Amino acid sequence: MPDQITSLDLLCLHTITTRPWDIDMAADKYAERGIKGITVWREALEGHDPYRMGKHLTDQGLEVVSLCRGGFLPSTSSEKRDNAIDENLRAIDEAAALGAPMLVLVCGADPGQSLELSRGQIVDGIAALLPHAIGNKVKLTIEPLHPMYADSRSAINTLKQANDLCEQLNSPGLGVAVDVYHLWWDPELEAQIERCGEGDWLDAFHISDWRTPTTDLLLDREIMGRGCIPIRQIRGWVEAAGFNGFNEVEIFSNQHWSGDQNEYLDSIITAYKDHC
Amino acid sequence: MPDQITSLDLLCLHTITTRPWDIDMAADKYAERGIKGITVWREALEGHDPYRMGKHLTDQGLEVVSLCRGGFLPSTSSEKRDNAIDENLRAIDEAAALGAPMLVLVCGADPGQSLELSRGQIVDGIAALLPHAIGNKVKLTIEPLHPMYADSRSAINTLKQANDLCEQLNSPGLGVAVDVYHLWWDPELEAQIERCGEGDWLDAFHISDWRTPTTDLLLDREIMGRGCIPIRQIRGWVEAAGFNGFNEVEIFSNQHWSGDQNEYLDSIITAYKDHC
Repeated sequence: MPDQITSLDLLCLHTITTRPWDIDMAADKYAERGIKGITVWREALEGHDPYRMGKHLTDQGLEVVSLCRGGFLPSTSSEKRDNAIDENLRAIDEAAALGAPMLVLVCGADPGQSLELSRGQIVDGIAALLPHAIGNKVKLTIEPLHPMYADSRSAINTLKQANDLCEQLNSPGLGVAVDVYHLWWDPELEAQIERCGEGDWLDAFHISDWRTPTTDLLLDREIMGRGCIPIRQIRGWVEAAGFNGFNEVEIFSNQHWSGDQNEYLDSIITAYKDHC
Repeated sequence: MPDQITSLDLLCLHTITTRPWDIDMAADKYAERGIKGITVWREALEGHDPYRMGKHLTDQGLEVVSLCRGGFLPSTSSEKRDNAIDENLRAIDEAAALGAPMLVLVCGADPGQSLELSRGQIVDGIAALLPHAIGNKVKLTIEPLHPMYADSRSAINTLKQANDLCEQLNSPGLGVAVDVYHLWWDPELEAQIERCGEGDWLDAFHISDWRTPTTDLLLDREIMGRGCIPIRQIRGWVEAAGFNGFNEVEIFSNQHWSGDQNEYLDSIITAYKDHC
């Protein structure tokens, strides 16, 4: 088990974690608390010039860790698949302008077709995007999603699948994000994280917690330490695999979004030191 | 892909599927439609003598396929673990009296301890129950549950884990239930079903469908054909593995339970022929 965290140097917040704040407010609040990293969600970036926003964030002492999110590549409709490629090319441009070294991919799925077909379309889609990503020095980061999202959000549901994809496409422009919320239950998690290290493609580590009972499939994540995920143990595994990047807090929560965001952010920082 | 189903000879209903009906009403309604199998939930059996109920069901032409459910073995409290063993011994007695050849196990999990610990307690608990189960000619049937239930319902979340357990305990009193709702997303499903066949421990096949969007983690299952699960394809895999038992419809649904149960049951029968 790794040592307790004492500094905020590797703490990164996803803008969606404090969704009620716009990006300017979020950046101010993160920076004034000494948080060093920010992952920008595209919805928060809307209406802003990404280059100027990137400079503004950097000026506040925040490192842009990634842009969330691209993907959603499969569809029964070839037109929609083409549109998804265009949208992802734009997202790569945005990431480059923002100064984000990676674009996180929620790969997508379509309940109207088999997972096998969706998985094939994901491979094709990523392959089509890689040259533009590499040309813009933006890595594509596959985030395997919890199996409860296999119907419509991602047909990539285990770290093994993401590792297989990285191996298959074998590109310096491709990596994976380990999100404890999606992967904590998997008995093969430790071994597959080790495999990420061997492949040298472990690019991101996302944290939050699983509450019991969970009342919403999407928007009921918890602050670290309030659920059942062994976050510190998993952090130990990713660090043993060579990862030394940011610990990114990504919480979707109707409950927390409806409360005072300052208190909530303070709770996150306390939880980060006590439970991660 | 297997042929379409034309008869109801292998159709079994779980009493919970038509929860608003008590067991007598359910049995009448199933039998009058020519359904041949019934899986009895313990909550439906409460207040009834299991031996007399078993005879009553058989007299109506219904075969008792299984008793649902035992399990819930792990706990941070040793007293609760002991109580769970006692409760499961009683469930085995009930199954034997009812004439059910198996007791389905929802293995359990405790969010207060690691999955690893829960998994060890599941092995210990099943090992403790097996002699009584074998003595009463009741098989224990491990049902791996969807990973979204790993916090509090089951630390056994893939068919691979259930197969590993069967291999490890290596007992004629132990088998597995393949439930498409829990397992459909797993890229290793076909291979692991094959492994069930090689081990000769595939004892039950449960069907329902996954709706998009799913609005409740537990009580929002769909009638077959209304979701994204490739049920017929999976039936092909279980049959190729040598399974020739009942196709058991197990739907939990607040929506369907709030409607007319006769119409709902008719829809299930139509869906069974068209989509399974």
